Amino acid sequence: MKLIECVPNFSEGRRPEVIQEIAGAIASVPGIKLLDQSSDASHNRSVITFAGEPAAVKEAALRATRRAAELINMEQHRGEHPRIGATDVIPLVPISGVSMEECVALARELGREIGEKLGIPVYLYEEAALSPERKNLAAVRRGEYEGLKEAIKQPDRRPDFGPPRLHPTAGATAVGARPPLIAFNINLNCSDVSVARKIARSIRGSSGGYPSIKALGVLIAETGTAQVTINVCDYRLVSLARVFETVKSEASRYGVTISSSEIIGLVPMEALVDAAAFYLRLQGFHAGQVLEKRLAEL
Amino acid sequence: MKLIECVPNFSEGRRPEVIQEIAGAIASVPGIKLLDQSSDASHNRSVITFAGEPAAVKEAALRATRRAAELINMEQHRGEHPRIGATDVIPLVPISGVSMEECVALARELGREIGEKLGIPVYLYEEAALSPERKNLAAVRRGEYEGLKEAIKQPDRRPDFGPPRLHPTAGATAVGARPPLIAFNINLNCSDVSVARKIARSIRGSSGGYPSIKALGVLIAETGTAQVTINVCDYRLVSLARVFETVKSEASRYGVTISSSEIIGLVPMEALVDAAAFYLRLQGFHAGQVLEKRLAEL
Repeated sequence: MKLIECVPNFSEGRRPEVIQEIAGAIASVPGIKLLDQSSDASHNRSVITFAGEPAAVKEAALRATRRAAELINMEQHRGEHPRIGATDVIPLVPISGVSMEECVALARELGREIGEKLGIPVYLYEEAALSPERKNLAAVRRGEYEGLKEAIKQPDRRPDFGPPRLHPTAGATAVGARPPLIAFNINLNCSDVSVARKIARSIRGSSGGYPSIKALGVLIAETGTAQVTINVCDYRLVSLARVFETVKSEASRYGVTISSSEIIGLVPMEALVDAAAFYLRLQGFHAGQVLEKRLAEL
Repeated sequence: MKLIECVPNFSEGRRPEVIQEIAGAIASVPGIKLLDQSSDASHNRSVITFAGEPAAVKEAALRATRRAAELINMEQHRGEHPRIGATDVIPLVPISGVSMEECVALARELGREIGEKLGIPVYLYEEAALSPERKNLAAVRRGEYEGLKEAIKQPDRRPDFGPPRLHPTAGATAVGARPPLIAFNINLNCSDVSVARKIARSIRGSSGGYPSIKALGVLIAETGTAQVTINVCDYRLVSLARVFETVKSEASRYGVTISSSEIIGLVPMEALVDAAAFYLRLQGFHAGQVLEKRLAEL
């Protein structure tokens, strides 16, 4: 069975009834499984995770984008997180029986339909990008909704699909394909956020670290301790274990230790199996030895 | 869905056609999935792993035991591994949606049917044992097939089901229930088997170590290196990580390091997730966050 995961982000995190409407539009497609749903009031943003076969995923993403355009007005939206539209970003993630190339092709079909059927300009990003400059989502979102109103008229900001102007209420949408992303936070035994920031700088791609790692140093108000908050964007390139060990080593430079870590949301089994194999020094181990995987294959 | 794994051991490891016949009897039950099959010529013994719903597993085990009694003659069997019958041992393992109590009840039903329908004496062992002395499989097998011919007449060796004498060709069978067993070997950077033996002694239950751990020190002829070969009999009591760390610590006492490890056959996902969580210091992680598990639940 071909299985794709889709993790759209919507610019609404304060009105649960709106998110329920959008989730309902997704769940109305036969064969789609809703996996997760989380809203953040200060970001005024929600993430819905669902999965299914490629055609069903495309249809569900289209219905969600249509419903979000009806219910969210970007003219009135305020929130901390950068965003360009009501449906801000739609990443497609290959899970099983599907190649990245198939996900890229599906992202482009979905982008074309959102542009043509809904009149919303679409930018393709990451693996689905048509030019290297648009691989990076941050570049696509530069200026955000407000700035993009004017910027969209420039040749280098012209959308890949849809009209060359923002949708009056829904703005624009970024559609892409990427490997599974793991949200991995590492807590430090210290209250000095500058240590977490220095460690984040040492591991993230944007300052010379691992290209597939994004990281920030933050202070967790509840506990008063510093945290390195990390996106592991391709665990096959840089594993959880390598991230953990690099953070541990950099922290020791400041006499700081790791107190704990956390994974937010879902994680592919392989990423955890890889971590177990790393630390247990397993040789010749393959995923087919995992009982549940073996049973699912049969 | 209720899922039980069954890992019967048969006293035949040299005639593949016999094992194919037995595997065929198992596979003839609707809903049964054959997971693994391995034969050892020097032990003259084969292990077949299959899984399914409780009633199907019981029926498949019964058919396999009948076929093995027809094809294997214990009067002619020679092999290194201790054994009491053609179908030597039938462990039932709860995998999902099934409690250990249900597995115990099924083992007892299966034992009764093997005794009554096939005329083979049955000993219940491990969790299914009716007396503490029979929990230990080694005690049930004491004297092996040859010695049990006479010993079975003693009151304390009387079988739990079936006739009070060995079946003329199939001997006797041990039927039990147990948690999933993980075959975990740890290779040492040394060629001195005495170090592996000392480490094995320090971790195994029979010499004062962890009650759920069985271990031996052996020399691997191919590589000329020492290995601690381990059965992790209940990974929820003593995890792979704790076994690994104890072996590492004991080895360092002799200036020896661990070069690698290996898992033979199947391993429950939870055992690997636990190892990842241990080493990554994950807090608040639950199996529902594993993408594949979440998808399977829906």
